[in-house]
Amino acid sequence: MSDLHWKTGITRISPNEIRLRGYRLDEMMGSLSFPSVIYLALKGDLPSPGIAALLDAIMVASIDHGASPPSALAARTASSTGAPLNASVAAGLLSINRFHGGAIEDCMHMLIDALQRANEKSESMEAIAEQLIADRTAAGQRIPGIGHRIHTNDPRTAKLFSLAQDAGLDGDGMRLLAQIQQEFERMGKPLPINVDGAIAAILVDLDFPPELGNAFFFISRTPGLVAHVYEEQTRERPMRRIHPTDHGYDGPEDRALEV
Amino acid sequence: MSDLHWKTGITRISPNEIRLRGYRLDEMMGSLSFPSVIYLALKGDLPSPGIAALLDAIMVASIDHGASPPSALAARTASSTGAPLNASVAAGLLSINRFHGGAIEDCMHMLIDALQRANEKSESMEAIAEQLIADRTAAGQRIPGIGHRIHTNDPRTAKLFSLAQDAGLDGDGMRLLAQIQQEFERMGKPLPINVDGAIAAILVDLDFPPELGNAFFFISRTPGLVAHVYEEQTRERPMRRIHPTDHGYDGPEDRALEV
Amino acid sequence: MSDLHWKTGITRISPNEIRLRGYRLDEMMGSLSFPSVIYLALKGDLPSPGIAALLDAIMVASIDHGASPPSALAARTASSTGAPLNASVAAGLLSINRFHGGAIEDCMHMLIDALQRANEKSESMEAIAEQLIADRTAAGQRIPGIGHRIHTNDPRTAKLFSLAQDAGLDGDGMRLLAQIQQEFERMGKPLPINVDGAIAAILVDLDFPPELGNAFFFISRTPGLVAHVYEEQTRERPMRRIHPTDHGYDGPEDRALEV
Amino acid sequence: MSDLHWKTGITRISPNEIRLRGYRLDEMMGSLSFPSVIYLALKGDLPSPGIAALLDAIMVASIDHGASPPSALAARTASSTGAPLNASVAAGLLSINRFHGGAIEDCMHMLIDALQRANEKSESMEAIAEQLIADRTAAGQRIPGIGHRIHTNDPRTAKLFSLAQDAGLDGDGMRLLAQIQQEFERMGKPLPINVDGAIAAILVDLDFPPELGNAFFFISRTPGLVAHVYEEQTRERPMRRIHPTDHGYDGPEDRALEV
Repeated sequence: MSDLHWKTGITRISPNEIRLRGYRLDEMMGSLSFPSVIYLALKGDLPSPGIAALLDAIMVASIDHGASPPSALAARTASSTGAPLNASVAAGLLSINRFHGGAIEDCMHMLIDALQRANEKSESMEAIAEQLIADRTAAGQRIPGIGHRIHTNDPRTAKLFSLAQDAGLDGDGMRLLAQIQQEFERMGKPLPINVDGAIAAILVDLDFPPELGNAFFFISRTPGLVAHVYEEQTRERPMRRIHPTDHGYDGPEDRALEV
Repeated sequence: MSDLHWKTGITRISPNEIRLRGYRLDEMMGSLSFPSVIYLALKGDLPSPGIAALLDAIMVASIDHGASPPSALAARTASSTGAPLNASVAAGLLSINRFHGGAIEDCMHMLIDALQRANEKSESMEAIAEQLIADRTAAGQRIPGIGHRIHTNDPRTAKLFSLAQDAGLDGDGMRLLAQIQQEFERMGKPLPINVDGAIAAILVDLDFPPELGNAFFFISRTPGLVAHVYEEQTRERPMRRIHPTDHGYDGPEDRALEV
Repeated sequence: MSDLHWKTGITRISPNEIRLRGYRLDEMMGSLSFPSVIYLALKGDLPSPGIAALLDAIMVASIDHGASPPSALAARTASSTGAPLNASVAAGLLSINRFHGGAIEDCMHMLIDALQRANEKSESMEAIAEQLIADRTAAGQRIPGIGHRIHTNDPRTAKLFSLAQDAGLDGDGMRLLAQIQQEFERMGKPLPINVDGAIAAILVDLDFPPELGNAFFFISRTPGLVAHVYEEQTRERPMRRIHPTDHGYDGPEDRALEV
Repeated sequence: MSDLHWKTGITRISPNEIRLRGYRLDEMMGSLSFPSVIYLALKGDLPSPGIAALLDAIMVASIDHGASPPSALAARTASSTGAPLNASVAAGLLSINRFHGGAIEDCMHMLIDALQRANEKSESMEAIAEQLIADRTAAGQRIPGIGHRIHTNDPRTAKLFSLAQDAGLDGDGMRLLAQIQQEFERMGKPLPINVDGAIAAILVDLDFPPELGNAFFFISRTPGLVAHVYEEQTRERPMRRIHPTDHGYDGPEDRALEV
């Protein structure tokens, strides 16, 4: 044991045994879903089955949003010069920050701060939401989690909130965000709760630290970036000029799940 | 439509509708597992339920392997200087290459090439395995997918092959790799099939291109890297000297699943 | 001209002519030093010959600091897994942040803020330095640019300040930092101005924005990282465990310049 | 000394003394140019004054080529999402590969291989050049270092070759590339030697390994990427759609050096 000896609480490796947060990896394989084990890795304990189902949905929700987001464009740009798959995806990951994917963390901070202040003053949800909108509007700040460039009614939000309800998750994060959205509607501005907002509210109610908020986004988006890079590598010529918006879709036609 | 117009076959975005390979994202949320949708993103179609369960296990298998792998060390090193979460994980991702995580792609190439040659000559599995070992030994090349630094019997391999069997997946990739392992045993060298080899053989039998092999590793490892970076951020002081091997585990004690 | 048309003020490319900030690149080649053209790229105008010489020295000052800094370790770690040269250097670059290389920006902010406050109150340098140390000590904050882990008298600082004097650069940034150092000495704590502090003070007096401070560090360090990665690639075996401090030097023996 | 003890031949750090390849860093500061010390770091010895001047020109040559190269676009894309300066530049660096910046390494390999074969057969430069073009044409391969998208006569090439001559550098690398260019001209295809080719030929004649070829490009381009990212941060709004070609220049007007 050298003077640089240090400790980790994540994984213990011994010959023929790998334990994550105390559980054997091979025992979890086949018994637990990948998102459940992600939850275990990040939070230290296993989720209930309802929350596990919700986590699968959170991961599916952000897996891809087409070729226009900067993370897809940066990954394709790197790939187009001949970068290997992992380096291209890394370039994409470096393009997930405050203004793209980062709304989850910002929204979590906003909700947690507002709830804490409200708690101290024993205020109602209505009062908090009203105050929060007034404060942000006065400061010229946007409200993260509300509104979307393209979707007037983000189809992923309703699904996430419904699964959260199924899982018995019913917390102040979701309540406050819904209140904010209603307050906007009352003011004549019908803006949707976007997927980042929905995930943020759920993560607040699951007691995750805001600092991990964006990780849910980029863990989910990594396979999407792989798909973009692989398509770029196999379909396009190197060093093409990649237009950020002028692209069409020619994949499989609309189809319905047969589940 | 400009002269830079291009096409993508992955995702189609329209107001209030996101379709991945033709399926509505919100319809898949709550109905399909995250790994099923990863499979859809990368392969273009949905897996059977048995394969979906196998994919969950593949993803769980590689989620973390402690603090010693270079990807964890590089991510912690970046984090220790004050890098944000995504940049730290990117540094980890850049450390996943031929010699760490890359055995999947190499093993897939090896299996596919050998099976193709065998097919042309109508050779038996035994003959292929024998020839392959002889050729590689003569050339001084290692055989990817066989052997492990720490595990003499990789606990993840048996689980993956058993789930593959449950899913009715029974292909030449797994058969050839098993044959190679038996050939080694016959030669008095009892080496395990490691987790990279098991995943490689399964991906060959699922007809994935080798170029996507490592993606399964790094998609799986991304949450593990997040856990390491978050631990580094919250537990260690900045700019510490990070010893690559001299660390102990002080997380939760051994516990069994209650499923 | 599309609706995405945008403007840049850096470089104009036309057939057989490349102009950076208005000057022909081929005209500058052979006439101007690389650091002069870096200055032009970042600041928009050319430096005087004295400042050009100072910039060369600033760049030489930070080119390498051995194998222990996290940027060298992260670059070597990535390289050790088989990463290409540029991806390895990128991993190093991602490890240059607030706690490594970042002192330049922090020190610039500190000096600029203090000088601005002093200006408003027409205070003497002595008073500002005293106040600054008192405030930071009370807040438990370190003073960036002062002190070094290894060097009690950073040999690079004296050289930079002497070259700055030769160039006729004599500004409040350098004066204030020197005053802070003297104040510490008066207090019985003889701490050196480190190279980051010296560069920060000079950049303040050259009127660079603090946001560009760290760029001087990482532009300078990039070739050093290349040297480390190339040494790793050509001298070490893949996937070795890289000890962060236990390494010796076996390069060329001490030698003196013959200039 | 642990069992992980290792050696490096680049830099020796002791209290108040930093030696790169045996020379004191503070002694070199003010006496040697930055590119001379880059050469020292990468090659182990100092260049002659003529070569030092040539190296400055090589570094100036590639410092920037406008906003269209993928490295600039990837860096701006990352920056546009809120990435810090170093992470944005890292995304740019990850976009410098075989098809962008990578021609230096490819051209060096081509020249070295051809010269070696020629040496073995004692062939003339004319014969080598002719054979090389014939072989590559037959194989459908491009010839790296020859031709340019925009420049019919790359203004940087003549300058580099003239400075090489001034430095007394007169090697087979430059001779062979010139011969290839003349052979093309004789065939009725007047293609220029581009800047990558000129640098490659010079590096071959300076006896650099091809594996370091691209490093000269990306060391030089790093400050250019910083300029693009800083312009993006200070001039553009976040998350804009970045058109890869539809941009104009509005920087300083054409001006001549006054040297």
